[in-house]
Amino acid sequence: MLKVKNETYKKLLKINEQLAHYDSILSLLYWDDRVCMNPKAAEYRGKQIAIITEYIHKVRTSKKYGQLVNSLNLDDYKKYSIEWVNVKWWKFEYERNSKIPPKLISKLSSLIPTSLQAWEKAKKEKKFKILLPYLKKIVSINKEMIEKWGYDEEPYEALVKGYEIDITPKEIEKIFSPLKENLIKIIQKYKGKEVPKIEIDKIKFDTQKLEQFCKFLIKKISNLEIRLDPTSHPFATTISPFDIRITTRYNSIESAIFGTLHELGHGLYDYYLPSSKYFGQPVSNSISLSIHESQSRFFENIIGRSRNFWEFFYRELTKHIEDFKNIKIDDFIKHINKIDLKPIRTEADETTYNLHIILRFNIERKIFNENIRLEELPELWNETFKEYFGYYPENDSIGVLQDIHWAESLFGYFPTYTLGNLISAQIYNTMKNKVNFDEIKQGNFENIIKFLKENIYDYGKTYTTKELIKLITNEPINPQHFINYIESKLKEVYN
Amino acid sequence: MLKVKNETYKKLLKINEQLAHYDSILSLLYWDDRVCMNPKAAEYRGKQIAIITEYIHKVRTSKKYGQLVNSLNLDDYKKYSIEWVNVKWWKFEYERNSKIPPKLISKLSSLIPTSLQAWEKAKKEKKFKILLPYLKKIVSINKEMIEKWGYDEEPYEALVKGYEIDITPKEIEKIFSPLKENLIKIIQKYKGKEVPKIEIDKIKFDTQKLEQFCKFLIKKISNLEIRLDPTSHPFATTISPFDIRITTRYNSIESAIFGTLHELGHGLYDYYLPSSKYFGQPVSNSISLSIHESQSRFFENIIGRSRNFWEFFYRELTKHIEDFKNIKIDDFIKHINKIDLKPIRTEADETTYNLHIILRFNIERKIFNENIRLEELPELWNETFKEYFGYYPENDSIGVLQDIHWAESLFGYFPTYTLGNLISAQIYNTMKNKVNFDEIKQGNFENIIKFLKENIYDYGKTYTTKELIKLITNEPINPQHFINYIESKLKEVYN
Repeated sequence: MLKVKNETYKKLLKINEQLAHYDSILSLLYWDDRVCMNPKAAEYRGKQIAIITEYIHKVRTSKKYGQLVNSLNLDDYKKYSIEWVNVKWWKFEYERNSKIPPKLISKLSSLIPTSLQAWEKAKKEKKFKILLPYLKKIVSINKEMIEKWGYDEEPYEALVKGYEIDITPKEIEKIFSPLKENLIKIIQKYKGKEVPKIEIDKIKFDTQKLEQFCKFLIKKISNLEIRLDPTSHPFATTISPFDIRITTRYNSIESAIFGTLHELGHGLYDYYLPSSKYFGQPVSNSISLSIHESQSRFFENIIGRSRNFWEFFYRELTKHIEDFKNIKIDDFIKHINKIDLKPIRTEADETTYNLHIILRFNIERKIFNENIRLEELPELWNETFKEYFGYYPENDSIGVLQDIHWAESLFGYFPTYTLGNLISAQIYNTMKNKVNFDEIKQGNFENIIKFLKENIYDYGKTYTTKELIKLITNEPINPQHFINYIESKLKEVYN
Repeated sequence: MLKVKNETYKKLLKINEQLAHYDSILSLLYWDDRVCMNPKAAEYRGKQIAIITEYIHKVRTSKKYGQLVNSLNLDDYKKYSIEWVNVKWWKFEYERNSKIPPKLISKLSSLIPTSLQAWEKAKKEKKFKILLPYLKKIVSINKEMIEKWGYDEEPYEALVKGYEIDITPKEIEKIFSPLKENLIKIIQKYKGKEVPKIEIDKIKFDTQKLEQFCKFLIKKISNLEIRLDPTSHPFATTISPFDIRITTRYNSIESAIFGTLHELGHGLYDYYLPSSKYFGQPVSNSISLSIHESQSRFFENIIGRSRNFWEFFYRELTKHIEDFKNIKIDDFIKHINKIDLKPIRTEADETTYNLHIILRFNIERKIFNENIRLEELPELWNETFKEYFGYYPENDSIGVLQDIHWAESLFGYFPTYTLGNLISAQIYNTMKNKVNFDEIKQGNFENIIKFLKENIYDYGKTYTTKELIKLITNEPINPQHFINYIESKLKEVYN
């Protein structure tokens, strides 16, 4: 019997290794689309992507695959062993995928391209009603899927589960509620206070030199060969093990630099995952979006906006962009850490960013749990925004229409952004006692990366988000660490 | 009955359209490998390529596919109609592919990576015997394939047929023999004559500015969005219709510029093929390697080394590389057109290039028709080289080992390079009476490209190489046009 199990396990390894090559091909098709491809070829790229996607989906939801997966018993494996992790995830994913009829999947995927077009038009023309009919269809399909998946406490739970296997909306609420109260208090506290004004947006820069600086950052921090390409919406991707690629945009100095650091955080995690050792196996993957985001935000914010960091890199920055010679490093650091109540999430400062997310989390929950009418979304958005930020956004384009996610059917995804922020601060709080962050002043990131490798990257998908945080920090996810971190930073900034 | 035929034809269209998407994916995997990928991921890329290649091969040689192809009768279609061309090529390719047992294919493909490694080592250490055992195996597999394919006049014919469907080695010989005699005479005639010495290799240049100049060339000539990327061995590729990508290298000014022009010639042909109109259909493809090479050599040499061309572009060149201000345009034009008896094909001038090819053609023919011992290859190479060029190459690394082709099992491929050169001169001879090449002086390439579109690109694969040349120039392939062209140019250069 054990022998048969073993054979089945080996078969699944082989199928998944093969599928991982298809996944690699798919990643390349997407990366190339956004970085290299002539847009005139979009229709052909769409078909190439569809062919590979459908093949992967077909194999992963096939009867044969299901029989193999179902014939394995998780209890036969030692908890947290490689095999246990693989079997656990094969089962979770097969169960989740196979509950949705292929027709529903293709209905949704054929809807998304037109929905995205409608979103772009709606955003451009500031008219929510252009998107509304598509959003209604997408939400309705998501509701159908929720019924197929099932849930314990509330419908929205089934969507979040796609990104965080063991964190429920109720638990998220317990974390987000005190965070929200504290953030609103912090904003009140610093309202009207100013930092020395520097107009970074008016500094002239040579794109090539800014790119060189960003590449210098990557090389100096990681000591790895990681591609950096320009794109309009920055992202990080992994084509194959060792082939990590990140992107940034050069529309402004800040978005180029912090975009690079953000994606580098994602890239480092991917690079050091055990993906070549356990190629194609679930255990070699990242834990979750929250943990992934914790790594990107760690490098973007906790490292990248710190005084230590700029004590090392500011001189190099002035070499590439001369005008920084006229700006004091102190003023620069204050500028990149100040509270700025902008209406757009992607332009938000570190403090208010999380309010943008909490707003989305609360609205998504209402959509799926309370079945609110989608016609009311703009008003709901604006009222909630006013409550958190103290003013109404000028129009829907910088309000309810600002993000691509909903038009793309990404529901349950937003909370992982703030979970990531909280986790990064919580891990940082533990790290501080074990790693000397002053080493950054000498451009030395070795011990920081070593800690992350040994405590996060090396484990792959062995633990869940909650388990890992407990292991590293000895407590559950706790927003207080972020609040402490941001308060102590703001005290410096505004003093 | 006609209806059934029609159904079969439609099925083949559909299968081939699907396969064309796989071909696109394959092209991207190769392009990315040579342009973007981190070399550390080579092992994974090899597997991705193998998966897609094997899938395409499996479908194209499947019993089902063969039955569909065989049930169509070429005589049922009007000669030169779209359908006729498609059916003709489906039949040709299926017949050729299905004659080779899969085992032989995989034996060959698994041999090539190690053979390439051996070639690199052999070339580096200047030791032919390192490559010899691999070459023996590759030649022996090729001989086995020749027997499977069959031939009329000589074994080598079966290999050439893979690249030129209706040109036999005997016909090539009839073209190459007078060419060889004439070229040797020309070399004798100009022996010892000098052009004003300019040391382009010593000119300092900024790679980015040289790249900008090359991109300017592409834009000005083609008025298309064609990517240009750096690589070590330049090539052109087409991922999907409209997505044409070329590469060049910046190791020297000349190789960057003429490499760009060469690949642009390939790129233009691919861009204007009817590949979006008849996607996945044979009729949408290029005719042959010879015709493809005729286009690259046309832009590289006939256009790119002409006085008209540099009268327009020289000023722009001096803007990007200042030192050209100290070089007279006359001396530059003489320099890029002078005879230079270098031992390496890829560095050869326009006149002697063809002797390098004729040498390879004659040796390949001996290998497969006369079964010469491969141990004798270096001596045979050196003696033939001496006969053509008047001296022995210093060592095998710049002699018999210089090209990658044989180690890669590319036999029968070389002659298409010189056929391309001859065809470009022959077409040019006809074009001169219909297009005003003086327009190049104003940077205007519109009418030149229009002629090529209407007479070559638009037809796709409708005609064979021989048929097309006859159609355009009213005579068979005739080397005299190249001889006239090169003699008249050299007269100017050396006067």
